[in-house]
Amino acid sequence: MAVSHNGSFAEATAVNRRADGSGYDIDLDPGWAIGDKPNGGYLTATLARAAVLEAARAGVDHPHPLAVSTTFLRAPDAGPAAVEVTVLRAGRGASQLQATLRQHDRLCVTALLTLGTLTDDAAWWDDLPVPDLPSIEDCLLLPDTSPVGVPIHLMRNVHERLDPSTLAWGAGKPAGRGELRGYAAFADGTPWEPLSVLLALDCYPPATFDLGTAGWVPTLELTCYVRGVPAAGPLRVRQRAQLVQGSRVDEVCEVWDSSGRLVGQATQLAGVRTPDGPPAARSPAT
Amino acid sequence: MAVSHNGSFAEATAVNRRADGSGYDIDLDPGWAIGDKPNGGYLTATLARAAVLEAARAGVDHPHPLAVSTTFLRAPDAGPAAVEVTVLRAGRGASQLQATLRQHDRLCVTALLTLGTLTDDAAWWDDLPVPDLPSIEDCLLLPDTSPVGVPIHLMRNVHERLDPSTLAWGAGKPAGRGELRGYAAFADGTPWEPLSVLLALDCYPPATFDLGTAGWVPTLELTCYVRGVPAAGPLRVRQRAQLVQGSRVDEVCEVWDSSGRLVGQATQLAGVRTPDGPPAARSPAT
Repeated sequence: MAVSHNGSFAEATAVNRRADGSGYDIDLDPGWAIGDKPNGGYLTATLARAAVLEAARAGVDHPHPLAVSTTFLRAPDAGPAAVEVTVLRAGRGASQLQATLRQHDRLCVTALLTLGTLTDDAAWWDDLPVPDLPSIEDCLLLPDTSPVGVPIHLMRNVHERLDPSTLAWGAGKPAGRGELRGYAAFADGTPWEPLSVLLALDCYPPATFDLGTAGWVPTLELTCYVRGVPAAGPLRVRQRAQLVQGSRVDEVCEVWDSSGRLVGQATQLAGVRTPDGPPAARSPAT
Repeated sequence: MAVSHNGSFAEATAVNRRADGSGYDIDLDPGWAIGDKPNGGYLTATLARAAVLEAARAGVDHPHPLAVSTTFLRAPDAGPAAVEVTVLRAGRGASQLQATLRQHDRLCVTALLTLGTLTDDAAWWDDLPVPDLPSIEDCLLLPDTSPVGVPIHLMRNVHERLDPSTLAWGAGKPAGRGELRGYAAFADGTPWEPLSVLLALDCYPPATFDLGTAGWVPTLELTCYVRGVPAAGPLRVRQRAQLVQGSRVDEVCEVWDSSGRLVGQATQLAGVRTPDGPPAARSPAT
């Protein structure tokens, strides 16, 4: 059983190529888990790291993940796992790869990745302006233990400070807007980069907490688009629940860098258990 | 060379299992192409049909696509192609599969699919109300030829009627909001179903047309969530461009059935060529 070594993001997502070329070994870091299950954004970033390495080995000069769609089959435990990467196509402007994580010979997670090169061109059109947020000092740091005592190890490595107006569920009074907003920064001061944006896009608590649901929201599918190389400083994060129906919810997450530039977007479909009766409040129709 | 046979949706997406069990054959229908390239939603629906069939053969009772993320490597031509399907995991509430389309032994499209069973439960939370639209009679039918003479065969099989306020680009005066709205219905009256919702989610013109761009917007990645079994009648469609930066755009598409229920959502990352200078107009910050 692996112990929490709380490595940096680079250490926690490190993949080691096997001498026989059959893939990569990884030791999934319990310091990036919720309870004993590694976070889905962490797993996605790990697969993307392996894919970028394998692309470079194949002579493909596409260092950045542009689009990563991850399908979750079984939640792996922290500890050793194996990653296989296949270059599906090496292209001019973009390349496509697939990366798959197995543990105890069982398929756990697989992702299709489009790699390319991010540019620092200014946005030609931007309909996702950075949301207003209180200063980071006026936001509240999420604790590393859930209200029911589950250790949220991830929160020791990623400091998430939430706009208090979106955190009333923490005191049992969800605002009923299905939206969380705030900041995210590595506890050790590591700057964000395109690979870790994939983690940021799935590091927030479920936005359904703001609707009065509790408990795990297991992701079925997560699609991340990385749109820019982040500037130094904390990311601003907005996570929204759009439709909760038939025990499933879709959530949208967007992250902006400290200069106000949108650097990542994600959508996920997840399972959710809703309480009886209507949600705590209803958002006005937008 | 295949000729346009303009079959129904069911005929155009029909897949035939090979006797040796090695996969499915399909004849990609030129009647569902833009120019000579089959539409991406059509290809996604075709892969999903093969996946649902293969799941049923494997004894998996998950008849509906819940999430489909499609990566486009090379645009196939109309004509014969081969689809391979792998059941990655047969689960209780959901199953995961992968479907891949090859033509002339070249990998063209691959998709990860999560299948399950859609329910008709009422939404517990819904932050995506159906947009206001003029009556269908007051909307404008898109022609089956582009302004520069490219045949848009798809439009003969899917009638798309757009809200005139989002169609000013057709007269060379884009509104500059990056949003298209309207209706979609099969020309032959076929009712919408979960599989064809995948087509509906990628059948509209690029929302960037409303920003003053022209030309093809090749999809890199398309993720679709199907959220309900559509009621009879036309779908309402909204397609929005969010961020155009560095020759790439993300677009969000949502479709509601005639009862006003959200039945599908999609996001895509695509290439785009922007003209010099700013877009025709800027959306107010939302």
